Amino acid sequence: MMKAVCLLSGGMDSTTLAYTARDMGYEILALHFTYGQRTEEKERACARTIARLLDAVEFVEIRLDYFRTIGGSSLTDRRIGVDAYEEEREGLPNTYVPFRNANLLAIATSLAEARGADAIFVGVQAGDYSGYPDCRPEFIEAFQKTIDLGTSPDTHIVLMTPFVRMTKADILKRGLELGVPYEHTWSCYASGERACGICDSCHFRKKAFRDLGIPDPIRYGGS
Amino acid sequence: MMKAVCLLSGGMDSTTLAYTARDMGYEILALHFTYGQRTEEKERACARTIARLLDAVEFVEIRLDYFRTIGGSSLTDRRIGVDAYEEEREGLPNTYVPFRNANLLAIATSLAEARGADAIFVGVQAGDYSGYPDCRPEFIEAFQKTIDLGTSPDTHIVLMTPFVRMTKADILKRGLELGVPYEHTWSCYASGERACGICDSCHFRKKAFRDLGIPDPIRYGGS
Repeated sequence: MMKAVCLLSGGMDSTTLAYTARDMGYEILALHFTYGQRTEEKERACARTIARLLDAVEFVEIRLDYFRTIGGSSLTDRRIGVDAYEEEREGLPNTYVPFRNANLLAIATSLAEARGADAIFVGVQAGDYSGYPDCRPEFIEAFQKTIDLGTSPDTHIVLMTPFVRMTKADILKRGLELGVPYEHTWSCYASGERACGICDSCHFRKKAFRDLGIPDPIRYGGS
Repeated sequence: MMKAVCLLSGGMDSTTLAYTARDMGYEILALHFTYGQRTEEKERACARTIARLLDAVEFVEIRLDYFRTIGGSSLTDRRIGVDAYEEEREGLPNTYVPFRNANLLAIATSLAEARGADAIFVGVQAGDYSGYPDCRPEFIEAFQKTIDLGTSPDTHIVLMTPFVRMTKADILKRGLELGVPYEHTWSCYASGERACGICDSCHFRKKAFRDLGIPDPIRYGGS
């Protein structure tokens, strides 16, 4: 059986992606990161639940405290407030963690090489997003080349990003067909008991459900 | 003044490289990693000394425990003995940490972007080495492209690897011209009080000093 490292944050996209990987016949090796982000407890609980529901062969949790040492993002520096979504924002939102996806993909590649996995599934999407440079297809292509050249010659790992050109509504539609339990996912960047409903991540999640005309099973309203 | 993130392990190559960066007029932001390797105490002490001697503006130490979680290398798994150097080895030595350099470079890039640095100096060398895939020039070129595409559009970070096609003897010659204090560097992969003298890293260090016909200021003989 083919084995895939699935980056599983506990959000909508990565959860739908893990269900997609299983649907494609891969055995799931769930890789979850905490990096001092505001919502790490919620995300971990969601990711664990999803991994269990998917019969993942392993749930690897990696704590990356260094993003706090590096700083420069409201996601990891509690002194900076999380930007609310803006239609016409100039530049990147302050939730951008410098070069984050490259860090996560490098770790995923190390794990995939050590475990003999065939693929890495990562739920990045270029469109309908906040302009993060490390979500673009060109970035993913460059990283694939880095993997090909930087791993052992007998290692062959394919970076799978089937959602990179899909909208969040497309992803949601796919997930509903696959029976993804969205009540067990968490998307909000803020740290309230309920999702805030106003950060970029909530904005795009709500929009996806609205676009499909179906209710979101989680509750909003901040803390 | 231009600023450079310098990966400083405390070994010969990275120390010589940091001296090279300073000689080129860069302000030094020293980045040191510990990842559960056998010799982390020695390496940290050497790196701190060198950073101090170079008037580094910052010494950032990042602990990466996850390489132990991932496993697969004698450098981070104490149950596996460190391979001795072999002239005709088949495949990679067991000191290979899967995709390690990509992990280190991803972190260096995050730090460089967060601090507004202009360059990253990393002391990889392709030749005279143990066949690690993530030390090859093609890997470095692919990673540069990943940086260009994965960082903010107004960020410009150049990956500097002046030693990539040099032999260790060339590097040592360069370092002696720059006055590098090699008595404060540590190269051995094993964990004795003195360098073992038989691992790949000791082998190449000793060979470099022998090639130049000068004495190595550190002492050998294992524990």
